[in-house]
Amino acid sequence: MTSPTRRVSGSTVRRLSLYLRVLETLTQEGAGTVSSGVLAERMGTTAAQVRKDLSHFGSFGKRGLGYATEPLRQRLEEILGVDRSWPVILVGAGRIGSALFEHAPFRDRGFNIVAVLDRDAAKVGKRWGEVEIQDVKTLPQVVARHDARVAILAIPRSDAQAVAEAMEAAGIRGILNFAPVPLRLGPAVQVNEVNLALEMEALSFALRNQKTGSDAGTSGEERGSRP
Amino acid sequence: MTSPTRRVSGSTVRRLSLYLRVLETLTQEGAGTVSSGVLAERMGTTAAQVRKDLSHFGSFGKRGLGYATEPLRQRLEEILGVDRSWPVILVGAGRIGSALFEHAPFRDRGFNIVAVLDRDAAKVGKRWGEVEIQDVKTLPQVVARHDARVAILAIPRSDAQAVAEAMEAAGIRGILNFAPVPLRLGPAVQVNEVNLALEMEALSFALRNQKTGSDAGTSGEERGSRP
Repeated sequence: MTSPTRRVSGSTVRRLSLYLRVLETLTQEGAGTVSSGVLAERMGTTAAQVRKDLSHFGSFGKRGLGYATEPLRQRLEEILGVDRSWPVILVGAGRIGSALFEHAPFRDRGFNIVAVLDRDAAKVGKRWGEVEIQDVKTLPQVVARHDARVAILAIPRSDAQAVAEAMEAAGIRGILNFAPVPLRLGPAVQVNEVNLALEMEALSFALRNQKTGSDAGTSGEERGSRP
Repeated sequence: MTSPTRRVSGSTVRRLSLYLRVLETLTQEGAGTVSSGVLAERMGTTAAQVRKDLSHFGSFGKRGLGYATEPLRQRLEEILGVDRSWPVILVGAGRIGSALFEHAPFRDRGFNIVAVLDRDAAKVGKRWGEVEIQDVKTLPQVVARHDARVAILAIPRSDAQAVAEAMEAAGIRGILNFAPVPLRLGPAVQVNEVNLALEMEALSFALRNQKTGSDAGTSGEERGSRP
């Protein structure tokens, strides 16, 4: 098999996550197999898209029989890297940081926030449950102690680039960035931006251009880019 | 000019938002014009991408002279629909709802959360600043009173579809959805999903497939989809 990820886009990865969720439901329902058509229907996509997405990762289905639910579920967990747990470092103990710390779906998927850091002396030393907020200056030691590769950045834009560079230097290789500024880091670090104001602007764009609104946003990604 | 949005993908719209931010900075710096090369450099993209993105919306630049900063900024505000303010209805007064309510970049962009609703009787009647939390059953009246078209859904997955349908029936046409479940609504409603667990899984996917990690996530959207 050739390197499977070379032609995998971000929107494909997101669909893989959604397939995984559908397969979990199907497993609970006791379905031993599932057709690409049923998967597609539950996802709001097409059977052709399902087959194309899964074909990136080898041959799963048999023509006329569909996919074996449980093996496909396990394989998707492997592909997505959620067959293990990940220690996650959170920098930013503000409101968004707090909401993320309590965000149950992170824990459910094995993303455990094991440390919280902030630069605010008034916050350092306080406890969130079992976790004590630490000074952001201790980032290298904290990352090393937990052997962490994943971090969440939930701080204002002014400090974001500097803290992100410190994360990179400390060995972090995946950052979920809530700071409203694009980070400039080396190619070894995967940054996923969650820019909430941008998401809202994509809505107002769609409303402003209402005639073709349903082609204009996230959900129209695949369709929208082909005239 | 043909309908400008017909061939605009979600990732193009997100870049438009980022161009707007760069142009705001350039305006503050007093730059009267900007080349596609400078715009590209500040965005971490290519000059060709900049020219392609902006070409969707007419002819802005002059060869060799670049773009006039302030007119382009104004035009991008118009295109994105952020040259006005939008009343926003928030359903879900939990931790994520609370963080969004306080999220300054929403207000800065004219997205004003004018009402907060929840189904929890213990929360209804409490005040967040000037806003009193109302029963989610009053959604139709609240939407009508504010003539709102935009809503944020920040509730658990179990109720999400039902509340989203109520939003659609009440006249909401753009939903920012934080509930970890895809919404099934009619084509008149633009839904942008913010599924934080999916964003984390896109990181663990990249880390699991580290050899080509930088091609595998959001930032590789345009490159990654072309082998």
